[in-house]
Amino acid sequence: MASTCDGSFREERDTFGPINVPSDKLWGAQTQRSLQNFDIGGPRERMPEPIIRAFGVLKKCAAKVNMEYGLDPAIGKAIIEAAQEVAEGKLNDHFPLVVWQTGSGTQSNMNANEVIANRAAEILGHKRGEKFVHPNDHVNKSQSSNDTFPTVMHIAAAMEINSRLIPELKKLHSTLQSKSDEFKDIVKIGRTHTQDATPLTLGQEFSGYVTQVKYGIDRVSATLPRLYQLAQGGTAVGTGLNTKKGFDVKIAAAVAEETKLPFVTAENKFEALAAHDAFVEASGALNTLAASFMKIANDIRFLGSGPRCGLGELILPENEPGSSIMPGKVNPTQCEALTMVCAQVMGNHVAITVGGSNGHFELNVFKPLIANALLHSIRLLGDAAASFEKNCVKGIQANKERISKLLHESLMLVTSLNPKIGYDNAAKVAKTAHKEGCSLKEATTKLGMLTEEEFERLVVPEKMIGPSD
Amino acid sequence: MASTCDGSFREERDTFGPINVPSDKLWGAQTQRSLQNFDIGGPRERMPEPIIRAFGVLKKCAAKVNMEYGLDPAIGKAIIEAAQEVAEGKLNDHFPLVVWQTGSGTQSNMNANEVIANRAAEILGHKRGEKFVHPNDHVNKSQSSNDTFPTVMHIAAAMEINSRLIPELKKLHSTLQSKSDEFKDIVKIGRTHTQDATPLTLGQEFSGYVTQVKYGIDRVSATLPRLYQLAQGGTAVGTGLNTKKGFDVKIAAAVAEETKLPFVTAENKFEALAAHDAFVEASGALNTLAASFMKIANDIRFLGSGPRCGLGELILPENEPGSSIMPGKVNPTQCEALTMVCAQVMGNHVAITVGGSNGHFELNVFKPLIANALLHSIRLLGDAAASFEKNCVKGIQANKERISKLLHESLMLVTSLNPKIGYDNAAKVAKTAHKEGCSLKEATTKLGMLTEEEFERLVVPEKMIGPSD
Amino acid sequence: MASTCDGSFREERDTFGPINVPSDKLWGAQTQRSLQNFDIGGPRERMPEPIIRAFGVLKKCAAKVNMEYGLDPAIGKAIIEAAQEVAEGKLNDHFPLVVWQTGSGTQSNMNANEVIANRAAEILGHKRGEKFVHPNDHVNKSQSSNDTFPTVMHIAAAMEINSRLIPELKKLHSTLQSKSDEFKDIVKIGRTHTQDATPLTLGQEFSGYVTQVKYGIDRVSATLPRLYQLAQGGTAVGTGLNTKKGFDVKIAAAVAEETKLPFVTAENKFEALAAHDAFVEASGALNTLAASFMKIANDIRFLGSGPRCGLGELILPENEPGSSIMPGKVNPTQCEALTMVCAQVMGNHVAITVGGSNGHFELNVFKPLIANALLHSIRLLGDAAASFEKNCVKGIQANKERISKLLHESLMLVTSLNPKIGYDNAAKVAKTAHKEGCSLKEATTKLGMLTEEEFERLVVPEKMIGPSD
Amino acid sequence: MASTCDGSFREERDTFGPINVPSDKLWGAQTQRSLQNFDIGGPRERMPEPIIRAFGVLKKCAAKVNMEYGLDPAIGKAIIEAAQEVAEGKLNDHFPLVVWQTGSGTQSNMNANEVIANRAAEILGHKRGEKFVHPNDHVNKSQSSNDTFPTVMHIAAAMEINSRLIPELKKLHSTLQSKSDEFKDIVKIGRTHTQDATPLTLGQEFSGYVTQVKYGIDRVSATLPRLYQLAQGGTAVGTGLNTKKGFDVKIAAAVAEETKLPFVTAENKFEALAAHDAFVEASGALNTLAASFMKIANDIRFLGSGPRCGLGELILPENEPGSSIMPGKVNPTQCEALTMVCAQVMGNHVAITVGGSNGHFELNVFKPLIANALLHSIRLLGDAAASFEKNCVKGIQANKERISKLLHESLMLVTSLNPKIGYDNAAKVAKTAHKEGCSLKEATTKLGMLTEEEFERLVVPEKMIGPSD
Repeated sequence: MASTCDGSFREERDTFGPINVPSDKLWGAQTQRSLQNFDIGGPRERMPEPIIRAFGVLKKCAAKVNMEYGLDPAIGKAIIEAAQEVAEGKLNDHFPLVVWQTGSGTQSNMNANEVIANRAAEILGHKRGEKFVHPNDHVNKSQSSNDTFPTVMHIAAAMEINSRLIPELKKLHSTLQSKSDEFKDIVKIGRTHTQDATPLTLGQEFSGYVTQVKYGIDRVSATLPRLYQLAQGGTAVGTGLNTKKGFDVKIAAAVAEETKLPFVTAENKFEALAAHDAFVEASGALNTLAASFMKIANDIRFLGSGPRCGLGELILPENEPGSSIMPGKVNPTQCEALTMVCAQVMGNHVAITVGGSNGHFELNVFKPLIANALLHSIRLLGDAAASFEKNCVKGIQANKERISKLLHESLMLVTSLNPKIGYDNAAKVAKTAHKEGCSLKEATTKLGMLTEEEFERLVVPEKMIGPSD
Repeated sequence: MASTCDGSFREERDTFGPINVPSDKLWGAQTQRSLQNFDIGGPRERMPEPIIRAFGVLKKCAAKVNMEYGLDPAIGKAIIEAAQEVAEGKLNDHFPLVVWQTGSGTQSNMNANEVIANRAAEILGHKRGEKFVHPNDHVNKSQSSNDTFPTVMHIAAAMEINSRLIPELKKLHSTLQSKSDEFKDIVKIGRTHTQDATPLTLGQEFSGYVTQVKYGIDRVSATLPRLYQLAQGGTAVGTGLNTKKGFDVKIAAAVAEETKLPFVTAENKFEALAAHDAFVEASGALNTLAASFMKIANDIRFLGSGPRCGLGELILPENEPGSSIMPGKVNPTQCEALTMVCAQVMGNHVAITVGGSNGHFELNVFKPLIANALLHSIRLLGDAAASFEKNCVKGIQANKERISKLLHESLMLVTSLNPKIGYDNAAKVAKTAHKEGCSLKEATTKLGMLTEEEFERLVVPEKMIGPSD
Repeated sequence: MASTCDGSFREERDTFGPINVPSDKLWGAQTQRSLQNFDIGGPRERMPEPIIRAFGVLKKCAAKVNMEYGLDPAIGKAIIEAAQEVAEGKLNDHFPLVVWQTGSGTQSNMNANEVIANRAAEILGHKRGEKFVHPNDHVNKSQSSNDTFPTVMHIAAAMEINSRLIPELKKLHSTLQSKSDEFKDIVKIGRTHTQDATPLTLGQEFSGYVTQVKYGIDRVSATLPRLYQLAQGGTAVGTGLNTKKGFDVKIAAAVAEETKLPFVTAENKFEALAAHDAFVEASGALNTLAASFMKIANDIRFLGSGPRCGLGELILPENEPGSSIMPGKVNPTQCEALTMVCAQVMGNHVAITVGGSNGHFELNVFKPLIANALLHSIRLLGDAAASFEKNCVKGIQANKERISKLLHESLMLVTSLNPKIGYDNAAKVAKTAHKEGCSLKEATTKLGMLTEEEFERLVVPEKMIGPSD
Repeated sequence: MASTCDGSFREERDTFGPINVPSDKLWGAQTQRSLQNFDIGGPRERMPEPIIRAFGVLKKCAAKVNMEYGLDPAIGKAIIEAAQEVAEGKLNDHFPLVVWQTGSGTQSNMNANEVIANRAAEILGHKRGEKFVHPNDHVNKSQSSNDTFPTVMHIAAAMEINSRLIPELKKLHSTLQSKSDEFKDIVKIGRTHTQDATPLTLGQEFSGYVTQVKYGIDRVSATLPRLYQLAQGGTAVGTGLNTKKGFDVKIAAAVAEETKLPFVTAENKFEALAAHDAFVEASGALNTLAASFMKIANDIRFLGSGPRCGLGELILPENEPGSSIMPGKVNPTQCEALTMVCAQVMGNHVAITVGGSNGHFELNVFKPLIANALLHSIRLLGDAAASFEKNCVKGIQANKERISKLLHESLMLVTSLNPKIGYDNAAKVAKTAHKEGCSLKEATTKLGMLTEEEFERLVVPEKMIGPSD
């Protein structure tokens, strides 16, 4: 059970009867029951903060709209004030419930209702637990957990994507673009199948990463329209029973105003309660981003491998000692953190997919899992992208000497002889050079295929980085 | 080794030297080598037909464009004719290679080059194996496997989505919509947490499925713009070496004309070779669709469960005897086929994600896997949606008697008393009825909360299916 | 940056130079750098406590063994004392690093070294930061992060499985067994394809769950032998450089003694550093358990669905009000929490698989991800199994009236007529009863197939629950 | 619809009535219905051959045991003869059904019953379709699809693992061991975090792979005991209704004798029908193997990368031309095929997990999916392991010159100075050498830490490959 500073309790009650609650906490009976019935995972597994804050936003907006429909203005204002504190994260300590509770998130909805009711009652000079402001009849008025929880899921996800993920992706995109520009004249060996291939510029290589991140931003953004659809107004099963006509549209408008994001009421409330396809879809965009980042980070660590026995084309920033036993070793740790995040995002995607596919009838009851896993992925990707940008990409330098050395040793420059001597002869040249450990020029002349001058005119790496006129 | 009808062979050669090939096959040396080096999975694992056909489309278009750039018109025309046969599936038997080959798909590209070269040579009156039409210098002119294979991946996926998947999804959407309309006046019990909840109409319930499929079509369609981007023109590493300026734009235009789909040249060829994020993204849309279908099919089988000991609200079409031992048993077999497909699509999605994340440097070498898994998912979802529509959804009937019986026995109608007697009292009524096995009306009057008339005025299921005025 | 109570700092240094560290914290320079370089995910993402405790165990054992190899006994003893505090969780606040750091876990190893070194120095009367006890030369003596981190991974996982998961699984197994026994005489309708089928006892149905959990315990236990293999002694790349012959065997023995678990030194240290197949394997066992639990929890919620419009065969314990709007509603919330956990475990399994497959050369650098995800899965499954057992399974009651009613209405009892009248005739009987809404007995006699007496002798549900003599 | 050579049909009938079947096919009415109702995926998606063969084995054994329980010996013998033909794959063309059918596999069971019944009737001189031998009453006697299909799943999986997978794994293990022995004296640079690290022998590096494969064999083998448990005898719901006491034990014994594998009757038939945890478990072992192979194949392709601009420590066998445009290029294609297989196996594992977790009540109805995906994974891993062993591992050579060059350039040899000059000083040496591009020896002497002689005595790569005495 939750500890109280002074160990004192007050009695709260719900339809199940009375129950003791720590005096210094604002939550009520239903929260307390959940705390006792779902001892799963410990405090690390608490409902994520963006959900708590979104509850604050929603309950504030609900009170506003309910006042239009007849909620006592004094009570309404107190709810608004209390809900604002929740939205600002000031009452986080009063949200002790874990993700692994009822699959509708009802208990977290009641946690919000109870905390706001008790806080609002206090604002109005009443005591906690007396239900002067009632968690169900006032705070939850015109709502059901079944529509509030998906609503806060959407608010939280859309806010986190907009405020945390996309800005960091844009910064990373911009820094990669600068690197691509900076490296635009550095011609280097290409590698396909991990094997030496024809040349390209380091700028071109980085331009691939730039495009991946750009499309990643597009992909995540493309999921927003469906995340902006709010279930609120569907109440228990999607019909809107016990709410008023127009409530759904008004509350979506209120949330939009409050968050400055274009939320609208969901086109179909039955879908909005019974399925979370919008989250499966959004997670799919994050999964694609994870695949992109895995590629980029792998490339960067391999291109920066060495210092002497790897590819060594990039010099990565040294941020910390790399090994507790091997002095002088500096590791691509930012790449490692990022790729670990990618693996977790791929895993969370499967969790979300499994949860999303297992809804039954009028309600999907994997809501907290789905919300938590998506918010986890958003946070990890946003933070890891920021860390990668700041502590790795920004400081990457090209090892021009090494790049040049490798380029000129490569056998794959032979490809530019294809149009002149044909594919089969070019292959012969490459094989001869490889077998005899000599240069391509030596092999070509030795085989009598071209003069030295012809070779030098034809094999110019700097001319191999684009199509011919 | 591939069997020949008459057991005779001809000699083909590549840069590795001579090798025997069955006389009645059009393929050449590199195909034959792959056949011997990759004995993995057997004939079921052959490169999927849409890839073979896309090779036909691409090689035809390449010949057209190459003729503009100087390819001998006689050879060009013969290539076009031969490629057309490939595009029409007439030469499928000459594509024996399996998916599990080199990760660039080079061997299948060479298979296409060799078959078309030999067939074109025959058209021109020359013998197979003589390379009058050269697989590399003529058929593969201005191309590399590294840009052709991703190009055929995109052509094949976009064609399959447009011709196979989306039409079937639209048909299913439309049939579900008809059912939703047909059932619009049937009020039934809602179920949340699998437990009895407030009522809705069967039409409303089906409208959730309609919306899921509608959004599913949107989601799949939203991935097309990036699938329409073709890598062709990037050649070996994305630079376009050994091709001509403008080749990329022209060939995309030719493919667009040939397929009547809006293909364009990829914005960034480095990304287009080194990553397959577009496939990971498209697979994400299919994964979301799979989650939707799992929900819909599960609902339908549970709502149709019985005939006497289940929910029994839906009557599903009887298509076959259900059990080899239990006579008279009819099973929701279409739901079963569909949900099995969904599970495989979720699995393929992970395979594609793993493959997509493991590209290195200038080339992702999980191409055949990625292509195969995506095409597999598209085909399965398209076919299963069609089968489900035709053999299940279309024939679903509502069991009105059963629906009505369950509705009127439900305790959850009590919810409509909330506004009148308050939440806590309503709970008391429900609990009393539950404990004593009596009706809600009896419990309400017994508890002295309402008169019978008041109860009847307040509890009207038909008025519980929407918000109040 | 980590806040300090009084805001004061001291200077610590490593090979990178000096850096400020909060005065009230025991960690040193490398921990501080990691804190600044990896601002990913916030405090929820800290290295899980079982890893911290395992570091305490390991460093204590290392000091013991190092004393045999010449470590100054005074320093050794102080390290043992300090490490013991870590093992007991007393210094958790001094381990601020998150999972998303370097992929070798080096920074957490250094965190442990630094905290223990500073604490040991204090014990010996020296100041923090003076390195009287050196984090590398003393605490990390004969070790590398590359062998210590996999070692603590194995210690933590094996301890958690033994102390947390298996006991809870055994309790659940035993409670399910009691229920199976309790229900052994209750004959009920069976359901296949969600459709009515031949009868079985409720005890038999539960015996399936009992077996699933029993095998689940076997499966998890079967992974322990490979988890008991410790990498320690491999140092940086698996060779054991800078350690002494026999160190590996001695330290495994010390850990075994300390933990009372049969740890041994790994058969092959190269495998133990470069791969984490043992974790992928263990996660596979958890994944199977998750599949089992998903089945069991789904069955229980469907069998308990209702109260009036579902299957209603089981009465689940009422632990809390089920809905914020529908009074009297009680939901299968424990099933929901458990199935959500299952979805996350399936997701974590993919994360671990992706991480486990991406090792390169002598080191897998997805270690913290892999460790965290496995420990997360173990904790969630253990806690959720406990909660499910205590708050759900233990209190399940059979609704005998309902079970009996459904059983006797079923058409599937017809199966027992097969041996007498043949499959085709039995099907005719069932179809007639279904179509005409009559009983099987009525249909059989009407069709003139059997007399009433014959029917009653043949169709006895209680005789249908096993093979015949 | 299936095409007939001569286009003629005969009438077959089941409880649904008459239906036309191609005259030249042995299947009956229920197979024909399935063919028409499940047009999903085309011929590539047919039930995998090992399942068909296992049906042959099972039906043969069932006839044997049924004869003991009174089946007419003439009919019994004919069934045995016909079933033997199925077991040998002679009647494969008569099994046209796809995986995506009813989730119990009933239709494939009926396919087997119908084919065997018609073939047995022919053997006895009767016509197809006349049911002289009855598919249900004779061939399926004492059986239900619900126990036969899981039984053939187990037979097929156990046979494939024993005959196809494990032998190939053993061969690969042995070849890797030979390579490890062959390379035991080649000292090379180690790499951790992809960065240069302390040395090890190439033999040690390969010993890690040897151990991974060895444990992989152990892991797969450890799943066999549960695969050897057969559901047969459980009939429709696990109770064994309509079969005789002892039938289950006898038929398991008959299958064991027929296959020479230690099959036994399942301990709990309810679990055996309702769950496929044994398949989820076995797939988990394959998933671990896939993670291992991904690591091994990645290492080998990176160590073999080059020829001039990669690591170049290994020389991989050249099996085919590597590129259609870059002559002379040889690619690690076997690694690519193998890693693609690994990705698919990981995906199939998720498909199996999703299917395995979605069973309801007395029957899991994802059986064909689960069977198909597991058999697919087994086949792919077995074939790819064989191909990899034969076409890659066996021919790997060490590039001794390159290995030696890299080793001696490395800075990480500095680690062996730790015990002498301490960690901080050693780091200084490495950093100096790195910054100034000089050798470690030069840096050490320049910094005045050691004499040249001391350095040479301390830094001996050959002495760095194990712990000291």
